[in-house]
Amino acid sequence: MGFGWMTAQRQDESGRITRGELRDFFDDYAACLDAEALRGFPSFFTRDAKYQVISRENHDEGLEHAAIFCLGRAMIEDRVTATVEAALYQPRSLRHFVSGVRIVGEDAGEVRVEANFLIIESLIEQEPEILMVGRYLDRVVREGGALKFRERSCVYDNYRIRTTLVIPV
Amino acid sequence: MGFGWMTAQRQDESGRITRGELRDFFDDYAACLDAEALRGFPSFFTRDAKYQVISRENHDEGLEHAAIFCLGRAMIEDRVTATVEAALYQPRSLRHFVSGVRIVGEDAGEVRVEANFLIIESLIEQEPEILMVGRYLDRVVREGGALKFRERSCVYDNYRIRTTLVIPV
Amino acid sequence: MGFGWMTAQRQDESGRITRGELRDFFDDYAACLDAEALRGFPSFFTRDAKYQVISRENHDEGLEHAAIFCLGRAMIEDRVTATVEAALYQPRSLRHFVSGVRIVGEDAGEVRVEANFLIIESLIEQEPEILMVGRYLDRVVREGGALKFRERSCVYDNYRIRTTLVIPV
Repeated sequence: MGFGWMTAQRQDESGRITRGELRDFFDDYAACLDAEALRGFPSFFTRDAKYQVISRENHDEGLEHAAIFCLGRAMIEDRVTATVEAALYQPRSLRHFVSGVRIVGEDAGEVRVEANFLIIESLIEQEPEILMVGRYLDRVVREGGALKFRERSCVYDNYRIRTTLVIPV
Repeated sequence: MGFGWMTAQRQDESGRITRGELRDFFDDYAACLDAEALRGFPSFFTRDAKYQVISRENHDEGLEHAAIFCLGRAMIEDRVTATVEAALYQPRSLRHFVSGVRIVGEDAGEVRVEANFLIIESLIEQEPEILMVGRYLDRVVREGGALKFRERSCVYDNYRIRTTLVIPV
Repeated sequence: MGFGWMTAQRQDESGRITRGELRDFFDDYAACLDAEALRGFPSFFTRDAKYQVISRENHDEGLEHAAIFCLGRAMIEDRVTATVEAALYQPRSLRHFVSGVRIVGEDAGEVRVEANFLIIESLIEQEPEILMVGRYLDRVVREGGALKFRERSCVYDNYRIRTTLVIPV
């Protein structure tokens, strides 16, 4: 019996997207990144998805400048390919902690969801540290039975991000 | 379709308070604080609620001395008004991470619940840091369909709290 | 009405182990450790269980060397007894944060599960710190209605563990 990255199962007979199902979906997404299984990353998004990593300051002021900005899954795939090929990985471990998954709006089968994320980084010869903390601001839809991000905005609270940030959040 | 701070929905037909429902309730509470939407804070409590923020040391020794102590929702509302009017906010972000929600007792429709909390603070020009860690010790009831705290004791493990602590935990 | 450490309830009529049930089980386990209620710890395991705490480096290289290694519940009980009798406890608080509980395989009633853990330590006269971060790699079965670990491998990302680590993770 095989298990891919996306294992969240439909929990509501009506097809409505539930908070429990979203928790599973967010945890699958985080596990994919923690495993550095970037090739599986684009499958979490719709074809027309927007994905960005942006500072809280820029987000709150409505500025467009983002550390990562992708419009459409093709652009997300390009980003992944570039990251994998650049092979900039240093020996390190990342662990995501997601809390507070919450539906804040709903419209025509699309739910707007928010959650907090915390990423802990462990490097050689150093104590583990907080790499990044912030909020996910998302729009999620169901596509062929599986949940997908139509938008995921990773809004980080850090006043700056370390130069080591190459991979998605 | 409007979404207030309290979005947790009744998950058990029998009206019994479930662990899943409590997780949702705790996450709503945390989101309210992270958004600095203090005006919505008192609505999480019953009219006769007790709310306190107390050190583990004082709590374990049965001492009454608490950093914040409110008896009754009116007192909680006063606290919020004072905090908002004092406008002591500095530009910062707080993010709550709640884990281990657990029912430890049940009596006549009231459940005693415990959970761990971790609050990460991000200030200008500084790396994000642990602001506070500890346990919630709660008594929760259902009132008019919605869950409410009859008591929330925030018992923090920190040996001291920074002077910047003004807002609820 | 009494509540033991293990309060997770069967959530699926078919007897199948669900992700929600595993979250409850993992949270009960963490609460037992945070409360320093070590006497209750062995009851989370099957009689033939394997329990280990091992570095990511050793785990990834297939090395056997582990900080804690127990084969069988008797060995787990011995470990607990030794720890309690040694009374090496210093005044401190530990809090577990578990995220990303995920079923990665299933075979004949046994599920393979993974999750992230973060342990925050608070000592006297010190700010709270990250003690340990890593992954749980588990095999879980149902035994007499309750979930049990047939294997729990705590794979930590820290490049070293502080000498204060005596108790289970």
